[in-house]
Amino acid sequence: MGPFCAPALRAPALPRRRYNPLSMKIHTLTIVGVGLIGGSIGLAAKKRGLARRVLGVGRNKDSLERAKNLGAIDAWFFDLIPAVHDAELVVFCTPVDQIADQVQAAAPACANGALLTDAGSTKGQIIKAIEGRLPAGVVFVGSHPLAGSEKRGPEHAEADLFQDRLTVISPTARTDPAAIERIKSFWQALGSRVRLMSPEDHDRALALTSHLPHLVACALAGILPPELAELTASGFRDTTRIAAGDPGLWKAICEHNRDAILVALSLLTDHLDQFRHVLEAGDWSQLDSLLIQSKKVRDALGS
Amino acid sequence: MGPFCAPALRAPALPRRRYNPLSMKIHTLTIVGVGLIGGSIGLAAKKRGLARRVLGVGRNKDSLERAKNLGAIDAWFFDLIPAVHDAELVVFCTPVDQIADQVQAAAPACANGALLTDAGSTKGQIIKAIEGRLPAGVVFVGSHPLAGSEKRGPEHAEADLFQDRLTVISPTARTDPAAIERIKSFWQALGSRVRLMSPEDHDRALALTSHLPHLVACALAGILPPELAELTASGFRDTTRIAAGDPGLWKAICEHNRDAILVALSLLTDHLDQFRHVLEAGDWSQLDSLLIQSKKVRDALGS
Repeated sequence: MGPFCAPALRAPALPRRRYNPLSMKIHTLTIVGVGLIGGSIGLAAKKRGLARRVLGVGRNKDSLERAKNLGAIDAWFFDLIPAVHDAELVVFCTPVDQIADQVQAAAPACANGALLTDAGSTKGQIIKAIEGRLPAGVVFVGSHPLAGSEKRGPEHAEADLFQDRLTVISPTARTDPAAIERIKSFWQALGSRVRLMSPEDHDRALALTSHLPHLVACALAGILPPELAELTASGFRDTTRIAAGDPGLWKAICEHNRDAILVALSLLTDHLDQFRHVLEAGDWSQLDSLLIQSKKVRDALGS
Repeated sequence: MGPFCAPALRAPALPRRRYNPLSMKIHTLTIVGVGLIGGSIGLAAKKRGLARRVLGVGRNKDSLERAKNLGAIDAWFFDLIPAVHDAELVVFCTPVDQIADQVQAAAPACANGALLTDAGSTKGQIIKAIEGRLPAGVVFVGSHPLAGSEKRGPEHAEADLFQDRLTVISPTARTDPAAIERIKSFWQALGSRVRLMSPEDHDRALALTSHLPHLVACALAGILPPELAELTASGFRDTTRIAAGDPGLWKAICEHNRDAILVALSLLTDHLDQFRHVLEAGDWSQLDSLLIQSKKVRDALGS
């Protein structure tokens, strides 16, 4: 029996007063997966006085202990069920291919009124697998905070990771509007800006802004012969930095969002073809135009 | 008449004792193009007591004044000729498409025994244009310090920019071995490691490690629709950072190194095709292998 398979015991309903979005104060916040993102949520919630108690769920004792010592969580569990029993809010920060199963395993043990969300980099498949399958009184609203790095583990967590970053919240036509408001308040309380996008729009956008750059960084790193490593400088290192991300996490993201990633990849290879034609033709004024246009886009993003 | 066209007056020969590589101490170091790289050379040479006097040559008075105020140069000139007259070492830190012309304009005004080098990102075309065309007693040895960033101007110069970085020195079969030793000593005195590579090997390597990443970053930035800018996070920003580099500089680099860049671009698009096939086939274990291999390469590079 795995750590997430303990028998589900339905908790009593939570008092309704706690859910006023204008005075969000969470009695028990449970974080499933206490790595860089989960740990940062714990640190941020505690720093901002948002949660009275933060519980962590994970598989690795050393990592959970580190998270506790860093102050990201107050206590930890291997088992999902006891950790979510009293939780008003449960945030799943596990790999995207685990979230839907864990949400469905946790929901029957959650109190009436409990709100569940996630921090996964894909939304469509997760929400499709969950929607309509939770017990009455337990609501899931998908989220994706656009923050993080190629690093892993609670030791890289930061209390201000979400400050002024964007969190996408992905409701569907069936999502309870009050739950959307509560999730918005939660991320805003952590310092984040929020934007609502459908799961499909989210996945199409992130294919281009996150999943494609990952594959490009990997492709670039992948063609570097070892003997040329010494001849790389900050340009190569910046451009390939995210290739150091966890292969397992990214494989799962690619599985979830394959179609949108393939569309984004075609867009890129078409544009690279344009660069190639211009180089072959020696059309330097056209190359200059392409470089100027790219610089304009990049300058607008800031550092 | 441009600033580099003043009449050439041959300076007297420099005393030979100054050229002992074991006790490199330069009386007059002239830096042509005092931006991020040129300014950093000036700061590094002064900080390390390597040069008694550092002269700067440029076209922009404000920028030259800034470099002087920052301590990167002691005095500046619009004209190349008076600035190189007494120089033992002249370093050309101008765009790659200007270096060969400037070296040829400066050389007749240089003292017998003067050593000329550059910091250009390409080597083949520059060296081809210069070799065999300098007056006797004046030697050019091409260099390329692998340091810098997408930023420009002496205000971004750093005295430790070259510390523990690699500088490629590109001699040819005709280059005087004593001159190679002097150039090695110079870059080493600035804190750099050095490696000798033929101009052709340098250009092939840098096409892959520097010029290709630049085009890839530009292509990625170039396909970002403005409405998705808000949905970029550190991954996209890291991967596209160098797209903010100066288009004119990069256009010139691409012109100089077109053939090698096209080869590198084919390598990349072939590898991206591999990723595409694997995604289309849903071959997740093969995707995992590709991601693992890329991570291994990137991890080996360090941060």
